[in-house]
Amino acid sequence: MSRAASGERPRRERVREQQRQQPIEEIRQAAFAVLDADGVTAVSLAAVGKAVGMTPQALRRHFPSRDALVDALVIAACADLGVAVAAAAAPTPQGGTIPKGARVALLAREYRRWALAHPRRYVMLFTDRSPDVRDPAAGAAAVNQGMLALIAALAAIAAPARASTLDRALLRWGQAIGAPADTPPAVLGPAVQLWSRVHGLVTLEIAGAFDSMGLDAGLLLDVEVGTALDALGA
Amino acid sequence: MSRAASGERPRRERVREQQRQQPIEEIRQAAFAVLDADGVTAVSLAAVGKAVGMTPQALRRHFPSRDALVDALVIAACADLGVAVAAAAAPTPQGGTIPKGARVALLAREYRRWALAHPRRYVMLFTDRSPDVRDPAAGAAAVNQGMLALIAALAAIAAPARASTLDRALLRWGQAIGAPADTPPAVLGPAVQLWSRVHGLVTLEIAGAFDSMGLDAGLLLDVEVGTALDALGA
Repeated sequence: MSRAASGERPRRERVREQQRQQPIEEIRQAAFAVLDADGVTAVSLAAVGKAVGMTPQALRRHFPSRDALVDALVIAACADLGVAVAAAAAPTPQGGTIPKGARVALLAREYRRWALAHPRRYVMLFTDRSPDVRDPAAGAAAVNQGMLALIAALAAIAAPARASTLDRALLRWGQAIGAPADTPPAVLGPAVQLWSRVHGLVTLEIAGAFDSMGLDAGLLLDVEVGTALDALGA
Repeated sequence: MSRAASGERPRRERVREQQRQQPIEEIRQAAFAVLDADGVTAVSLAAVGKAVGMTPQALRRHFPSRDALVDALVIAACADLGVAVAAAAAPTPQGGTIPKGARVALLAREYRRWALAHPRRYVMLFTDRSPDVRDPAAGAAAVNQGMLALIAALAAIAAPARASTLDRALLRWGQAIGAPADTPPAVLGPAVQLWSRVHGLVTLEIAGAFDSMGLDAGLLLDVEVGTALDALGA
């Protein structure tokens, strides 16, 4: 058993860890402010250093490169999105449960709400980044909390099993993200499909496409959720 | 009737117009090369000027600003995408026709093919740009050629009419883009929906999401086309 896991870390070490984390959190918040104002391309060690009153050299002690900084933003944004979506379908504090189909709608609406509240963070998650930065494992694990909530909501609906050429790949993926072992492709497939559909709507909405077409993106989302539920026989 | 439309423009004027257009085309090609290599954020008057051997000042005679240059790229990319998609479902040179449902699949696959062949151009069309640059009218008109081909392909399939809260907005939009006057919302709605779904898949594919999930994006696209055709009773 390692010393760290034994809970007997000396106090001095814990204080040092807090001192190390505090500027990191400050830097991250400043970087999010730059990102939210001007997009991910504006995030640089110089711009963020200026915002927190540090030289790029001092900043490098915490984030050795711009990529490392963007990496941290991606992980934090993924976690934030994953937690928000998962929470949207959690049982109410009063112990009440949400009707099966309604949970799917709540998840999809919360995903859209988060994306519209942080459009530049959302776009960053799916943008050209350096290959090293793409999909840091910690970010993927965090955002998968939302996906697992969607899978649970869809699994609660009786799904007719229909074999598809995608089944084996879906099962491997479900296993990789930690979905319950008995989750069938007939649940995993609709989960991927609904996510991709909501992503399509949300990115077009952020890009202003539906505004210029005079279409209500919220209604389009509800139609997609309804279609997904109909297909599952809900 | 204007002189330009009468076809009687003096030869000297036409030559001057050609001389004016030639460097513009050269600059545009150089700018596309920068975009394809490094993304839209790398497109600057300095970078493109260097590529064509012009100073930023000389470049400004043709494109007064970076925004004007990106604007031109957006219009050209929209036209290219619109023409490619529309051509995918055109009658064959032998005069043969393509089965109704197959035309929808051809359009969707060509849209994906174009996006994957020019991922950075595709991403640019839906990216943060200056508000002035967003959706230049000429670009929208060009890309709508593809949408009109999709509407025609869907209209050829018997569509059950089902009233929706989106109907009035869809009809206004159909009129705005020049869809045939009798095109019902039951065709316009599925056209928007299929476009948004294909856009969702294609952007996730470009971002590398399906690779990391181990899923075949081409199969996912075919599933979406099949779902759309099933919903229309094809």
